[in-house]
Amino acid sequence: MTTSPIRLAINGASGRMGQALLSLLRKDARFELAYTVVSQGSSHDGEPVWLGHALHHAHDWSRSPAIDVMIDFSGPAGLAAALDHCLAHGIPLVTGTTGLDAALQARLDAAGAHIALLRAANFSLGVALLTRLLREAAAALPDWDLEIVEAHHGRKQDAPSGTALALGQAAAAARDTTLDAAAVYSREGLTGERVPGSIGFAVVRGGDIVGEHQALLIGPGERLELGHRATDRAIFARGALQAAYWLVGRAAGHWRLEDVLASPG
Amino acid sequence: MTTSPIRLAINGASGRMGQALLSLLRKDARFELAYTVVSQGSSHDGEPVWLGHALHHAHDWSRSPAIDVMIDFSGPAGLAAALDHCLAHGIPLVTGTTGLDAALQARLDAAGAHIALLRAANFSLGVALLTRLLREAAAALPDWDLEIVEAHHGRKQDAPSGTALALGQAAAAARDTTLDAAAVYSREGLTGERVPGSIGFAVVRGGDIVGEHQALLIGPGERLELGHRATDRAIFARGALQAAYWLVGRAAGHWRLEDVLASPG
Amino acid sequence: MTTSPIRLAINGASGRMGQALLSLLRKDARFELAYTVVSQGSSHDGEPVWLGHALHHAHDWSRSPAIDVMIDFSGPAGLAAALDHCLAHGIPLVTGTTGLDAALQARLDAAGAHIALLRAANFSLGVALLTRLLREAAAALPDWDLEIVEAHHGRKQDAPSGTALALGQAAAAARDTTLDAAAVYSREGLTGERVPGSIGFAVVRGGDIVGEHQALLIGPGERLELGHRATDRAIFARGALQAAYWLVGRAAGHWRLEDVLASPG
Amino acid sequence: MTTSPIRLAINGASGRMGQALLSLLRKDARFELAYTVVSQGSSHDGEPVWLGHALHHAHDWSRSPAIDVMIDFSGPAGLAAALDHCLAHGIPLVTGTTGLDAALQARLDAAGAHIALLRAANFSLGVALLTRLLREAAAALPDWDLEIVEAHHGRKQDAPSGTALALGQAAAAARDTTLDAAAVYSREGLTGERVPGSIGFAVVRGGDIVGEHQALLIGPGERLELGHRATDRAIFARGALQAAYWLVGRAAGHWRLEDVLASPG
Repeated sequence: MTTSPIRLAINGASGRMGQALLSLLRKDARFELAYTVVSQGSSHDGEPVWLGHALHHAHDWSRSPAIDVMIDFSGPAGLAAALDHCLAHGIPLVTGTTGLDAALQARLDAAGAHIALLRAANFSLGVALLTRLLREAAAALPDWDLEIVEAHHGRKQDAPSGTALALGQAAAAARDTTLDAAAVYSREGLTGERVPGSIGFAVVRGGDIVGEHQALLIGPGERLELGHRATDRAIFARGALQAAYWLVGRAAGHWRLEDVLASPG
Repeated sequence: MTTSPIRLAINGASGRMGQALLSLLRKDARFELAYTVVSQGSSHDGEPVWLGHALHHAHDWSRSPAIDVMIDFSGPAGLAAALDHCLAHGIPLVTGTTGLDAALQARLDAAGAHIALLRAANFSLGVALLTRLLREAAAALPDWDLEIVEAHHGRKQDAPSGTALALGQAAAAARDTTLDAAAVYSREGLTGERVPGSIGFAVVRGGDIVGEHQALLIGPGERLELGHRATDRAIFARGALQAAYWLVGRAAGHWRLEDVLASPG
Repeated sequence: MTTSPIRLAINGASGRMGQALLSLLRKDARFELAYTVVSQGSSHDGEPVWLGHALHHAHDWSRSPAIDVMIDFSGPAGLAAALDHCLAHGIPLVTGTTGLDAALQARLDAAGAHIALLRAANFSLGVALLTRLLREAAAALPDWDLEIVEAHHGRKQDAPSGTALALGQAAAAARDTTLDAAAVYSREGLTGERVPGSIGFAVVRGGDIVGEHQALLIGPGERLELGHRATDRAIFARGALQAAYWLVGRAAGHWRLEDVLASPG
Repeated sequence: MTTSPIRLAINGASGRMGQALLSLLRKDARFELAYTVVSQGSSHDGEPVWLGHALHHAHDWSRSPAIDVMIDFSGPAGLAAALDHCLAHGIPLVTGTTGLDAALQARLDAAGAHIALLRAANFSLGVALLTRLLREAAAALPDWDLEIVEAHHGRKQDAPSGTALALGQAAAAARDTTLDAAAVYSREGLTGERVPGSIGFAVVRGGDIVGEHQALLIGPGERLELGHRATDRAIFARGALQAAYWLVGRAAGHWRLEDVLASPG
């Protein structure tokens, strides 16, 4: 679409997602990597970036050239500084930073009046599509029982996964309820019958499973199984790049990864 | 919604689907079974219907009382007579009869200008929803490889199933192509690489599997699996009743089972 | 194998399993139904059995003709009386009665010295085979993470299913541990990392699912998925008949449904 | 078990599998890499191996030190030379080379009288276990319909996969038939009913799927699903190392990867 490459900045370039983004950018002619920021104490601070040109990681935005879009996977402090820069210069921002406090959350919410923002907990395009489809299915067959099964590697510390919870929230909203009201997170012993309208979660842990989610809509004599399997963590960086590419030129506001997906004609 | 039951007629009442409909109607207070027709040579011709009231199978529509909606699972000849009756009296028609010749097909097409018609090859509401979701997914991720796997009982005579083909057609249309152009129906021996944009089919046969369909959208490092399982043939009769219930009061035209599904608010 | 049909008695003939057995026996030439017992207070007591000959349900064993094998799906009291009869006459006994107290359990254990006994919690041949395969897999790849997922209809009162627990016990024993030591029955919130050697359970409830079980053995970069799906409750009655057929002529002792399966040559 | 590391040689060290073996050996204290051979024309010929010590790729076996076991993933010519060396020195040989002509095949067959040999088409331990389980299942439920579904990336040139065919052969042998007699490789159009005793294959192609195989045993009202998923190609190198470790000290003869798996006590 654009003839010259998009000037991209990465905030949190030394983290796992930052490194994955750098790796993909080597082969992605849509983008020119214009600036990268790592946290001040990072062991990567000031180190040369692998790209062929003379780019070194910075630890603040003071010397940033003009950029078209920023991707942030840093942390709350890094995001706060990045948000200042984006607001000052009208830069669209893609962010996957989590663990925000209420104040930063409120600042992000307010920023949508001024710049284009795309936030997501999971940058897989497949998960974004699954979320959209599940919302639609939960509404289309409101009486069918809904269950969400997820599987992840054995080192994962929490359950259900954030993505499973986000799927549950989307489905609950589509049925005019909330996850708080509908969720059943475990079943053990004498559970009694399934509560109509509830959303059950089931969790599998083992090996090095990247991440799998399945939503079951179960009716009498038939069911739908809507699932997503990730086999490579690179999909999250790929989705973030896709989101950044898409966000350039969008109107100010809060966008979702689902919006990046093509819509049926 | 309606306070008095819907007056329903069944055309093809002695067939497998007709019997399944009668069985469900025993417990469905939304409907009053007003008239049933079996083919003239049927061994059921004139026999008492199981319902409590004095209803006997008829073999034509000459004595039919006023009805609100008709369900037809007869055959081309039976459908032709039923269509005459529906057109003469403005009766909405749900039909699952297949094997129509071009003339009858044309008459049905034309009838949509005068009465509400709902035709389907598969009356599962879950399959209808899967079709809608697949259409959307195929458009949203147009570059992902699409494959359709189906499983049925060992007595099935053809492959892939009509439902698998219909899913493929829906997906092909969503990608601005046709199934004829995109389908790969078998892979055996030295196949060479997968052709981009193709839609592959895989077929499983065994036991008494009622019917299962799965669409795979496969991208780099991730994939979506959209599946449907039927475990009870009663779902087809249940879906036909749901369609009939929904069709009462609709405008003239051609409706799909997908339209019966609730839409997201 | 035998030229004359096997003379079979059913204890608990008016229950759900008893009725399913009677239904299958209509079409099974291997057996002659020789005697049926229902509990004394049963509304079916003394009623004619559907079979063509002059057989009426009895409520005790006093008038039983000679029989080759008995199938029991009654209850603890019914089983106790049936066991007396089997021991007195050397009759092989297939039983699926659960909820035994310690005394009856001890009597059954002791009876194995005198008659051939086959007890099971789940009479599916497929589940029996899955149990055998899982035992073998758990031993063959002792370091792979093991998870068991099960799905049942929404009316089920307990979780995980008895079959899931039995699968877990078989796997635990194959790894020289116990289910008590290894089981993790729910994961919710901050669970921490998966404990090596543990066996995780995940539970799905919804619709009218007859029963599905899947054991996952998850290693680095690969995994095994060993699953069973039941779609028709008749499989349990079919498995019990198969067990009874197989038990005729066996030595005294305790047999398992797994023993009924053919072994690799 | 052994106190000093096993001295390992790799034949075909510059190929895809050779490189994967070298990568794993960096972190595997069970082995000492003693010698590596690449084909004479290889661009890697004579280059330093990444390991810390002074090892350079050789192109023949003339200067090989004493080794405990050899792993070969070269090609027919490379294997022929390696086999000479193993026979001359009594070295156990693990080989995954395919495409052998009849003469080399015969030499390998004969070599089993003198050295321990382990040949496999697929070095996944999970696939080896699946093969064993399928053989057992096919024999235990000989009347259930058997179907094999496999999925691989879109660049794969042939179908069904060699592993799917090997699974089919194992199952056919367990049922006292052959794959030639039983296989149905495609179903398209008017297929007629499923032939009892046949083994059906279904093929999925797309994305970058490493390799997935599922065997379905389908009976009336129930079925078994025995599946394997590979998500990382490193599993094949890992399995080859496991095989080499296991083969040291075994008796002369032909061993299978299945033999490497632990057996139930």
